[in-house]
Amino acid sequence: MRQYFPILDWGRGYDRATLSNDLIAALIVTIMLIPQSLAYALLAGLPPEAGIYASIAPILLYAVFGTSRSLAVGPVAVVSLLTASAVGQVAQQGTAGYAVAALTLAFLSGGFLILMGVLRLGFLANFLSHPVIAGFITASGVLIAVSQLKHILGVEAGGHNLPQMLGLVIAHLDQVNLPTLVIGGAATGFLFWARRRLRSTLARLGVPPLLADILTKAGPVAAVVVSTLAVWALDLQARGVRIVGDVPQGLPPLTLPGLSPDLWRALLLPAILISVIGFVESVSVAQTLAAKRRQRIDPDQELIGLGAANLGAALTGGYPVTGGFARSVVNFDAGAETPAAGAFTAIGLAVAAIALTPLVYYLPNATLAATIIVAVLSLVDLSILQKTWRYSRADFTAVAATILLTLGLGVEIGVASGVGISVLLHLYKTSRPHVAEVGLVPGTQHFRNIDRHDVQTDGTLLTLRVDESLYFVNARFLEDLIQKRVTEGCAIRNVVLMFSAVNEVDFSALESLEAINHRLRDMGVGLHLSEVKGPVMDKLRRSHLIDGLNGHVYLSQYDAWHALAHPSQVRAV
Amino acid sequence: MRQYFPILDWGRGYDRATLSNDLIAALIVTIMLIPQSLAYALLAGLPPEAGIYASIAPILLYAVFGTSRSLAVGPVAVVSLLTASAVGQVAQQGTAGYAVAALTLAFLSGGFLILMGVLRLGFLANFLSHPVIAGFITASGVLIAVSQLKHILGVEAGGHNLPQMLGLVIAHLDQVNLPTLVIGGAATGFLFWARRRLRSTLARLGVPPLLADILTKAGPVAAVVVSTLAVWALDLQARGVRIVGDVPQGLPPLTLPGLSPDLWRALLLPAILISVIGFVESVSVAQTLAAKRRQRIDPDQELIGLGAANLGAALTGGYPVTGGFARSVVNFDAGAETPAAGAFTAIGLAVAAIALTPLVYYLPNATLAATIIVAVLSLVDLSILQKTWRYSRADFTAVAATILLTLGLGVEIGVASGVGISVLLHLYKTSRPHVAEVGLVPGTQHFRNIDRHDVQTDGTLLTLRVDESLYFVNARFLEDLIQKRVTEGCAIRNVVLMFSAVNEVDFSALESLEAINHRLRDMGVGLHLSEVKGPVMDKLRRSHLIDGLNGHVYLSQYDAWHALAHPSQVRAV
Repeated sequence: MRQYFPILDWGRGYDRATLSNDLIAALIVTIMLIPQSLAYALLAGLPPEAGIYASIAPILLYAVFGTSRSLAVGPVAVVSLLTASAVGQVAQQGTAGYAVAALTLAFLSGGFLILMGVLRLGFLANFLSHPVIAGFITASGVLIAVSQLKHILGVEAGGHNLPQMLGLVIAHLDQVNLPTLVIGGAATGFLFWARRRLRSTLARLGVPPLLADILTKAGPVAAVVVSTLAVWALDLQARGVRIVGDVPQGLPPLTLPGLSPDLWRALLLPAILISVIGFVESVSVAQTLAAKRRQRIDPDQELIGLGAANLGAALTGGYPVTGGFARSVVNFDAGAETPAAGAFTAIGLAVAAIALTPLVYYLPNATLAATIIVAVLSLVDLSILQKTWRYSRADFTAVAATILLTLGLGVEIGVASGVGISVLLHLYKTSRPHVAEVGLVPGTQHFRNIDRHDVQTDGTLLTLRVDESLYFVNARFLEDLIQKRVTEGCAIRNVVLMFSAVNEVDFSALESLEAINHRLRDMGVGLHLSEVKGPVMDKLRRSHLIDGLNGHVYLSQYDAWHALAHPSQVRAV
Repeated sequence: MRQYFPILDWGRGYDRATLSNDLIAALIVTIMLIPQSLAYALLAGLPPEAGIYASIAPILLYAVFGTSRSLAVGPVAVVSLLTASAVGQVAQQGTAGYAVAALTLAFLSGGFLILMGVLRLGFLANFLSHPVIAGFITASGVLIAVSQLKHILGVEAGGHNLPQMLGLVIAHLDQVNLPTLVIGGAATGFLFWARRRLRSTLARLGVPPLLADILTKAGPVAAVVVSTLAVWALDLQARGVRIVGDVPQGLPPLTLPGLSPDLWRALLLPAILISVIGFVESVSVAQTLAAKRRQRIDPDQELIGLGAANLGAALTGGYPVTGGFARSVVNFDAGAETPAAGAFTAIGLAVAAIALTPLVYYLPNATLAATIIVAVLSLVDLSILQKTWRYSRADFTAVAATILLTLGLGVEIGVASGVGISVLLHLYKTSRPHVAEVGLVPGTQHFRNIDRHDVQTDGTLLTLRVDESLYFVNARFLEDLIQKRVTEGCAIRNVVLMFSAVNEVDFSALESLEAINHRLRDMGVGLHLSEVKGPVMDKLRRSHLIDGLNGHVYLSQYDAWHALAHPSQVRAV
């Protein structure tokens, strides 16, 4: 029971001290989430209340099924962008169909996550390599920031990739709305300053640390309040400033996702993509935070927790959600000890949905855009390019390709290509394995690369150490290599393949080894194996290779040398 | 020059003896190819002359650019089936658009092959594993044979996968044309018998071996002649027997592929697929035959040879071609020594195109279908299922999935899924690598798995031998494993990772190792590496891992043991 309902675990030891810590954390996170939820709904192309709704039921459901003590679930920037991109392909923004498609996306995503969790397939998320994730998040941050420029400038624009977005913004530069630009510019500037300097300024003024912290987190709220008052007082709406307008007042409604097979077919792939990206982002955050307190999370149960949260979003007027980085860190730093902090946050947001929505009528979209821009620019980290360049060209290629393709062709193609490229690069690397000719280190039983060490060799004996598992991608490479080496070295009477680093021989490689064996036999050359690992030998015994081998299998390379080298011909190199 | 025009190589030493051998081989192959070319054109859904045309210019071009001495290029069964499947999606069979689409397919395929050859990307063909190829060829053989049933029965049917084809044939069983069935059944029976018994029967009758061989190869010609005469004499055409009809008389026409971007877009992926499959089939045949005579072929130049052949087919009224298995073996067995044999075959077919086409007016389609059925059933080899089952479940899964998906969903999805599945299975296998805890074999410097051998261990020292390269797919696995092992074993003060089988550490794995290092340091446990290979160490030195390592890198595992194990606590297990 406890495995599937982690709430039974932490719920038993819940006491007054924990309650007080959780309540403080919930207060801080709620203040941060109100403008953020409205803003991310704007990013996803949905009405502002969808962001609030997506922060209530999902948090409660994750509190029941999730395993992280600190993760804060709700709308996040990257998933909002992915939602806009996926839903924009099946419905027009602003229509009822758009909102239904967003619910359906959350529903499919939740179903897929739960299915993965029940099948315990959490490890599949590992197919997204660190460089691909880093490149994707960085490029998404840039895309999101640029996508908000239109709100700051007060122009109509759109697009799903950087050239489109910039092109449309530039094409509309003549229509810039000055009051909007003033509000947007001021809000962006203030939020940047608040993020960097407000806490230290307040500390210098003698404000106690906890209060300074809450005030800093309230920066976006301040921007919201001031800009809303400005619009109301100066009637800027009449001068072309776009505002949030009417937001329904009340608790999240009960909603149903669309059930048309066509809609499902169109949204299935995006839902899988959103699930995987959201899961990877969420698990990384949860693992990092858990490790700091020596706690553990269970990735497969996390799938179920996030899946339940998304189903909750689908049934209560929301859209796809996941564990967010910024909010989870704030939650953790503010001292949240259990998922109850999340439940209190949900209550805070529910109160906001009931009581505060009329107050945001005059809130300008430009302020929300400023909130988003300041939040996502922390995602942009180009140092990954420099780090991977120094470490390995293959990893650099994967990062650079992911960034360029995401910026140039959009998020979905970008991340899919990133995964494809990293798999292809891995296959390419293993397709031309390092194969060293080895000789005996004098006075020992060790064999090393003849190009790197002073070793003894014997002209009639060719010993090759294969530094890679043998499988279909490199099977023919070894065939060609041995053919070439043996035809070049006329004196060779025996070939030993040293298998110390061969962790697998698949059926294609087995057929190649059989072909090598036949060809060498035709040429009167023996083929031997040495240092074959247990699991590999178990498999080879089930084939005809060992029976038909034109030579022997030696336990150690030294045994092979002892049996096959002609001492009179041994020479020190 | 010679690298790109292999003809310069063999052309210089050409003499009368070679000429005579090549002429005999050409005669035998020509006799075999005339009915086969007509039949494969039928399979591809094209008029019969397309098969003849596709056998003339392509052979000549391959003779100039190809590196195999024995390969016979032209229409082959699997590529004809793929052509029918691809072209059938953009045009209606029998229309002018259909023939143009087939030309375009050959053109794109030729361009792609030449591009691959110039970029020297022949190794990419290795991504098709042996089991996937074997499964695909077997399933294609079944599909092709079933697709010809309609011609044997004289009914209208179609379909691109086994359930469709069988369903349509069964639905039309009431319309079976009896004379067609008699011709088709008799031809199939005769051809099976000729293939199996004719040579030995003729030998028993005292016919000289070479003549017996030619007569056996002429079996299909005999079936063609007899059935054509039967249709003509009995006026079976009037009784519903479908015949070849008018075939234009003359040399191949000059043709142009379609140039519409839409057509190119629709045919590009199928063209790539056909190129890769054709290339793999052709290179396997060429390599097998070359090895028998101690010759070598150059896979990258083969790409150029096959590409030129396909461009030739596109410009002379043909359709995609490749090196065929059956015809190449016949060519080789008949004594062909140089590509000149192919050129003579082309001349033979040109003569047929000029002189013999009126003679096939009354040739029934049922006879051609019988030719195809008998030819392709030799492709069907289900023993690969049994062989891979015995050797490895993963390889068996790849074969079985390829066969089932090809039969059930058609050739294109089948082979694409086969490739995808074998890559995924490889990634899955490496995602959960074998990690052995090792101890010292008493009296030696060797370390072996504590579960398989009697070894010495030390409770404060955990030594893990990782039997796989570390990369993104398994990076987190190692992180979790070490976390689990160390939290379970409270006495552990040092962890040694023995890297003797780690051939690569990518950036994701580097970050995981850094995370492991940080976590172990927080727990007061040292992290050490041993037996790190040169290339891996070179890369790790470019990162911060080695500087920040909470321990040492030891050259050998014995050095690590010597430095870290506490002799007083050593116990024999």
